[in-house]
Amino acid sequence: MTDPQLSTTDPQTAPAQQRTMGGDPVVGIIMGSASDMPAMEKAGKVLAEAEVAYEIEVMSAHRDPALVTEYCLSARSRGLKVIIAGAGLAAALPGVAAAHTDLPVIGVPLSSSLSAAGGLDAILSIVQMPPGVPVATVGLDNTRNAAHLAVRILGVS
Amino acid sequence: MTDPQLSTTDPQTAPAQQRTMGGDPVVGIIMGSASDMPAMEKAGKVLAEAEVAYEIEVMSAHRDPALVTEYCLSARSRGLKVIIAGAGLAAALPGVAAAHTDLPVIGVPLSSSLSAAGGLDAILSIVQMPPGVPVATVGLDNTRNAAHLAVRILGVS
Amino acid sequence: MTDPQLSTTDPQTAPAQQRTMGGDPVVGIIMGSASDMPAMEKAGKVLAEAEVAYEIEVMSAHRDPALVTEYCLSARSRGLKVIIAGAGLAAALPGVAAAHTDLPVIGVPLSSSLSAAGGLDAILSIVQMPPGVPVATVGLDNTRNAAHLAVRILGVS
Amino acid sequence: MTDPQLSTTDPQTAPAQQRTMGGDPVVGIIMGSASDMPAMEKAGKVLAEAEVAYEIEVMSAHRDPALVTEYCLSARSRGLKVIIAGAGLAAALPGVAAAHTDLPVIGVPLSSSLSAAGGLDAILSIVQMPPGVPVATVGLDNTRNAAHLAVRILGVS
Amino acid sequence: MTDPQLSTTDPQTAPAQQRTMGGDPVVGIIMGSASDMPAMEKAGKVLAEAEVAYEIEVMSAHRDPALVTEYCLSARSRGLKVIIAGAGLAAALPGVAAAHTDLPVIGVPLSSSLSAAGGLDAILSIVQMPPGVPVATVGLDNTRNAAHLAVRILGVS
Amino acid sequence: MTDPQLSTTDPQTAPAQQRTMGGDPVVGIIMGSASDMPAMEKAGKVLAEAEVAYEIEVMSAHRDPALVTEYCLSARSRGLKVIIAGAGLAAALPGVAAAHTDLPVIGVPLSSSLSAAGGLDAILSIVQMPPGVPVATVGLDNTRNAAHLAVRILGVS
Amino acid sequence: MTDPQLSTTDPQTAPAQQRTMGGDPVVGIIMGSASDMPAMEKAGKVLAEAEVAYEIEVMSAHRDPALVTEYCLSARSRGLKVIIAGAGLAAALPGVAAAHTDLPVIGVPLSSSLSAAGGLDAILSIVQMPPGVPVATVGLDNTRNAAHLAVRILGVS
Amino acid sequence: MTDPQLSTTDPQTAPAQQRTMGGDPVVGIIMGSASDMPAMEKAGKVLAEAEVAYEIEVMSAHRDPALVTEYCLSARSRGLKVIIAGAGLAAALPGVAAAHTDLPVIGVPLSSSLSAAGGLDAILSIVQMPPGVPVATVGLDNTRNAAHLAVRILGVS
Repeated sequence: MTDPQLSTTDPQTAPAQQRTMGGDPVVGIIMGSASDMPAMEKAGKVLAEAEVAYEIEVMSAHRDPALVTEYCLSARSRGLKVIIAGAGLAAALPGVAAAHTDLPVIGVPLSSSLSAAGGLDAILSIVQMPPGVPVATVGLDNTRNAAHLAVRILGVS
Repeated sequence: MTDPQLSTTDPQTAPAQQRTMGGDPVVGIIMGSASDMPAMEKAGKVLAEAEVAYEIEVMSAHRDPALVTEYCLSARSRGLKVIIAGAGLAAALPGVAAAHTDLPVIGVPLSSSLSAAGGLDAILSIVQMPPGVPVATVGLDNTRNAAHLAVRILGVS
Repeated sequence: MTDPQLSTTDPQTAPAQQRTMGGDPVVGIIMGSASDMPAMEKAGKVLAEAEVAYEIEVMSAHRDPALVTEYCLSARSRGLKVIIAGAGLAAALPGVAAAHTDLPVIGVPLSSSLSAAGGLDAILSIVQMPPGVPVATVGLDNTRNAAHLAVRILGVS
Repeated sequence: MTDPQLSTTDPQTAPAQQRTMGGDPVVGIIMGSASDMPAMEKAGKVLAEAEVAYEIEVMSAHRDPALVTEYCLSARSRGLKVIIAGAGLAAALPGVAAAHTDLPVIGVPLSSSLSAAGGLDAILSIVQMPPGVPVATVGLDNTRNAAHLAVRILGVS
Repeated sequence: MTDPQLSTTDPQTAPAQQRTMGGDPVVGIIMGSASDMPAMEKAGKVLAEAEVAYEIEVMSAHRDPALVTEYCLSARSRGLKVIIAGAGLAAALPGVAAAHTDLPVIGVPLSSSLSAAGGLDAILSIVQMPPGVPVATVGLDNTRNAAHLAVRILGVS
Repeated sequence: MTDPQLSTTDPQTAPAQQRTMGGDPVVGIIMGSASDMPAMEKAGKVLAEAEVAYEIEVMSAHRDPALVTEYCLSARSRGLKVIIAGAGLAAALPGVAAAHTDLPVIGVPLSSSLSAAGGLDAILSIVQMPPGVPVATVGLDNTRNAAHLAVRILGVS
Repeated sequence: MTDPQLSTTDPQTAPAQQRTMGGDPVVGIIMGSASDMPAMEKAGKVLAEAEVAYEIEVMSAHRDPALVTEYCLSARSRGLKVIIAGAGLAAALPGVAAAHTDLPVIGVPLSSSLSAAGGLDAILSIVQMPPGVPVATVGLDNTRNAAHLAVRILGVS
Repeated sequence: MTDPQLSTTDPQTAPAQQRTMGGDPVVGIIMGSASDMPAMEKAGKVLAEAEVAYEIEVMSAHRDPALVTEYCLSARSRGLKVIIAGAGLAAALPGVAAAHTDLPVIGVPLSSSLSAAGGLDAILSIVQMPPGVPVATVGLDNTRNAAHLAVRILGVS
């Protein structure tokens, strides 16, 4: 459960919003709201257990679109191999990320206090991408599976 | 009903994808796929009946993100006062438009051959925007109501 | 969350049900039940931060239909430019308001203890308006976005 | 299936929009769109078989609100004992009718080409009335059951 | 909220399961489980305020089918004019009641700890009756509206 | 797809409504409407291929309740070991059957022209039985699986 | 409610994960997660009351596929006559069990903290089996009905 | 749209059910029914355009479980790097595949004539996997996006 009403620019929570764990990151974890951090950190924990270095940062597709664009356009050149994007409600972040990179993007639908239809809003907003721009969607609030999927993808190389 | 599998860059349909009707446009109609044009033109027809000049163009939030960004960032300076954005499936276009302009953005959920849950995918992807970035959502495939709403908004000034 | 079982005519809560904030109001906030007031006041707070004067009042489309009709018929002449209407369940208030004025009407679906299908009842009752009478719908319980949308609409003039 | 885009004021279909069958009517059948007439006439046929006199008329809660108000306020004094109201999408007509009369109002959710979620929009818009203003709801497109219910209610006296 | 797992034959709660209020009852309130009693008693309270005599009793369409059949077959001869039936889950009681009487039957969908899809199970199980056997359905857990509807129906005579 | 509006008492279709196939029947196939016969006969075909004798008959829980009661109360004594009940909409037949016999009852949700929410009405009306009276539910319109399940159950002995 | 994040291999809970009750078991109760044990034990309690011997064990279709395969392939030869399988989310266990045995398999959809759409995920994942491989599905979290159904099936022989 | 009732063992269609395209395959496309082949071949076409060699084969998780197990257990050693699995209804194939390999598995929900709730059955059966066994889910019937996602994943190495 996330509180989508938290500002992403709250100076007090900002220092926690961007971190790198375990060397040069190969997975980038992004999320639409600072309130999503506790849920998304579970994905980071699974990556750490698999000794996969990652970075984690808050950026909203709707409130910080330029930041998201820049982050995704530069992702491959910065060494990232997979992006995990968590978002709730009309969850555009995973799809917007996939539109700005050709890396695999994993989308995690998140529930919140404003969710409708038992979380169908976030699930359908992420999984129903138009042909040509896929997002690898995992289950509702299932941030751990996003990390497990990233580990499988990294194992392809 | 739209066919989301039509390419937006098909040279044969391209000439029809950008048009201006009735003088300096104050409403911009955009849509995610060339196949949405017949549905969205109904909005144009209502605007024309109300003697509101508009432009109409195809641009996908997922396949043409830079075009959408540029279109919306420059919308106000080009004289637009309202943007109508139609999209189906994980319909990100209205929300992405609203993220790049402070003009009112009207979102129209569109059904297609790939729709799920009787069109709930597009409705929820458009209406459930996070706090701070609103989209004025109208009913499924209800392109005419998008135009009626635009006329009401233009009547405010 | 609202309690739809509260009477709108309870004399103790009545004094709080009609207020004007910040000069001649240009936005009218109405809602179907006194129990919706805490949620709808968040819209008022956003308007106040944007220095937009508003009035706020409880009136039910189903229990006070004459009041709603009179309020909306006179809205433009009283100086209102936008109406924000919040309602839950079979949420008729936004649509009924739109039927009695040509001002833009913003509808906010509200959840309550009697909601069904995770709030789909209120969302679909507001967004699925018939052609000709549009309501600008925002997300479930997303009263703040209603105010943000009103500010965008007021910025058109 | 109804086409909600048909105008209710089409002069060609208008003569068919108001009829009285079988003497002084005790049941009033109303509907939101002229395109609903074929579906609603099935209710009339059941009433005729039960030798119940009825009148049938098109009036939209959203496009003809004053007409609906007048119709329902005067219903009891004109001799009506039950109102059957059919509507689709954000189907406000049954609830608005129930707000303007203390007669029993039977609501029939109707599907149309603009329906969402397999008709859940109309069902939930009619059945989920707030406490104090009930609508006796029957099944989707089940106009015959509306008439059967009216016959049962008339049998109470 | 009801606990559908309570036995209807618990001797301790049995004495409360059948009561008559206010003289010769004209409304019969029945429900599928003893655990529904607190919710259904709200309907009784509304009837009492309207000075309508009623009886209230627990009987399950699935566990006590013979009792339900006998109750409904004899309802009219015992002086009842309306039956209010509340049930949850695959809520068959209102429909089964309507199959055994020609009195108007009002169905109230009830939520419980075993509900699915946000109460859609009970709503659809009650409202979607086949042609010929109507149930007048009110909103989820909206027991008060069932009583308000009964009062309207009784006012027809 | 069934047409629930067909009368079960149409004399022309009546001769086809009750048949016995392959000796003393051990499976009874019942359905709510004569229009369900083509769908339910697919179950019979699977049984015949497995050399299981069956009888097949139309009886509605709502329109022929006494017939259903008698059929199920006598089922075991007549040699039946399993009942397959198909129904659509507010599909009460399987549950009512299970209430009048202790044989295993298999329920098949059927879609029809009056279905809502993509067939969720029939699925939830059959699967969500209250504790104590189970129905073995198979998939929407999946009459063949009902027969396959019956064969498995018969194989237990 | 189950916590699907509990490991099935936690050594502390392991001793409780496999038990046999009441002699040579004829019913096998399996579930996808150790956290489902409290819910599934209610089925065991109903069986015990009916003096039906059972075994109960945790095995996940997705995490322990070989164990599930072996369990089901050997079920008939070990004396089992019915399998009850409970699972949540994308609940594959009942269907996978039915694919590896010709015994009747009863599926129980379970809700959890990760459920979507009010438990529709588990219901639809279990009931919508493809033709040829049926699962006898009972209601959401309705483990007691699974046992009642097993007792009915055992009574066939 | 697929017809789930087609047998996978029909000798006439069998020759088309297993093919290898373009050299040593790195992507394995599997599906639950021969009737899914036309839909899944669109994925193959996208892979061919990207010069990715693939094999394509029909195997049902429910009807051919041993074949699925063997296919997935040996997938990595045979040189596959990604598995695309399409299935409808209670779509277990993608999850079962993911349970038997540590390769990334992409799941495609497919609609069919037996689908419920507008395809929500297949979407939720694939996306809602339990923690530890992820499936990368794409949109309903969106076989092309499955291939686009596979190309992105292959680009990681």
